[in-house]
Amino acid sequence: MEIAATVAQAKAVVRSWRSHGLKLGLVPTMGYLHEGHLSLIDRAAAECDRVAVSVFVNPTQFGPNEDFERYPRDFAKDSKLCAAKGVGLIFCPEPAEMYPPGHATYVEAPALATGLCGRSRPGHFRGVLTVVLKLFMILEPDMAYFGLKDAQQFFCLKKMVEDLNLNLTVVPCPTVRESSGLALSSRNAYLSAEEKNAALCLTKALNKAESLLKAGERRGEVILGAIKETIAQEPLASLEYAEAVETGQLTEVKEFVTETLVAIAVHIGQTRLIDNFIWRG
Amino acid sequence: MEIAATVAQAKAVVRSWRSHGLKLGLVPTMGYLHEGHLSLIDRAAAECDRVAVSVFVNPTQFGPNEDFERYPRDFAKDSKLCAAKGVGLIFCPEPAEMYPPGHATYVEAPALATGLCGRSRPGHFRGVLTVVLKLFMILEPDMAYFGLKDAQQFFCLKKMVEDLNLNLTVVPCPTVRESSGLALSSRNAYLSAEEKNAALCLTKALNKAESLLKAGERRGEVILGAIKETIAQEPLASLEYAEAVETGQLTEVKEFVTETLVAIAVHIGQTRLIDNFIWRG
Repeated sequence: MEIAATVAQAKAVVRSWRSHGLKLGLVPTMGYLHEGHLSLIDRAAAECDRVAVSVFVNPTQFGPNEDFERYPRDFAKDSKLCAAKGVGLIFCPEPAEMYPPGHATYVEAPALATGLCGRSRPGHFRGVLTVVLKLFMILEPDMAYFGLKDAQQFFCLKKMVEDLNLNLTVVPCPTVRESSGLALSSRNAYLSAEEKNAALCLTKALNKAESLLKAGERRGEVILGAIKETIAQEPLASLEYAEAVETGQLTEVKEFVTETLVAIAVHIGQTRLIDNFIWRG
Repeated sequence: MEIAATVAQAKAVVRSWRSHGLKLGLVPTMGYLHEGHLSLIDRAAAECDRVAVSVFVNPTQFGPNEDFERYPRDFAKDSKLCAAKGVGLIFCPEPAEMYPPGHATYVEAPALATGLCGRSRPGHFRGVLTVVLKLFMILEPDMAYFGLKDAQQFFCLKKMVEDLNLNLTVVPCPTVRESSGLALSSRNAYLSAEEKNAALCLTKALNKAESLLKAGERRGEVILGAIKETIAQEPLASLEYAEAVETGQLTEVKEFVTETLVAIAVHIGQTRLIDNFIWRG
């Protein structure tokens, strides 16, 4: 397994693979890998000849009062996990390698970045799209794998790939959960045992919404109402948003008709968690 | 010579060249080709195995009151000129092919896009960077050639290539001039005989500035003053800007020390013309 900390090193590895006609899968991560990331690596390994994993806590996608400094990091563990999975390259640049002094060009996030998480995290998707485009240019993958826990991120990236005519396919992968139902997230490390228990209200709320849909309910108001009620019952939880949007432009859905993303963001103490499901009718 | 009107056709041509290990040079144009464009094609042909020319009047780089509709077009002549130069591919999409309904992702222009032409043309460089990035992704050139008459455009593109880690080199090429000194531009077609004569004040003004620099003058105020005075003497001309900026971040220069771009924009009747020179000390 190659470990590249500079753009030039990473490009050299990738160029050599490409010259041999190998198909490359990329799994972009912020490190502190969990089973969710590992499922993306497995999928990439199954579909590609070589897998590259980027480990980069991207400063431009964090707001000034967010958890950039505090975000958990454990490169030793990450590199062991990657080696065990047969990853060919870890790209782990420092921020100054990705954003040298004077860096000034960004990807402007499309309109579908403004709702949901974009409302409380202005600039977040601009940072995500910019860093992912840079990673795509550096690592030139044929396929790139993203977890659907960050559903809005996936839809924004898919739009970028289409709009900018990028030569790769972005692959959405299902959210991996603990047996309790809690969606895996590196930020779960922030939770105390009590908070982790409280965090199950996200799963409970989404399950309730899915049950209503299965029973034939189609009114957004009723489905989101059930979610809000469930979150409200948990004293440690505070709802940031619960929304239903169609999966094209991510515009609000009053009545469930076409494919719909039901997404929530909930603060458990100081920790902001997100989760969602996609209803396909 | 292949002529591709769709992204898929263009990608197929380029993919076949790449699979043979051929080096590709791109000359992005808005068509209505003149000797300036042809000099870029010659340079590309000298340095690369295959040359692609894009002919696309890009709507997103025109403001609402600018000359998008009126911009001169002559594809029959352009394709003859390209064929005579041994061009391998013309990519000539319709606007809807480049910007299908729902297109929403743009490149945010860096700070160096805000001065000079950016001041009177807000959104212009956002449109330029977005379309050029799309052309880079569609045509995957190793080299891309741009005329230095549009100096700010070149510096913004160079910044984008660096900041987004694009896998190509942008090559600045000298402005081509009529024997009178007038810089070639497709927009010269808008000028009446009288206006074309008046337009020589741009060359006169820049020549005067260069003479002062050769004589040892280094004060921006004096050099720009001479330019303004020359333009003011031409009754048909109205100066939009005359500026001196260093060529890194395009920030104003009071005293000429490092490499400096002296750029002007002048309206001759209804026609907006630009010209410049780079002083290297």
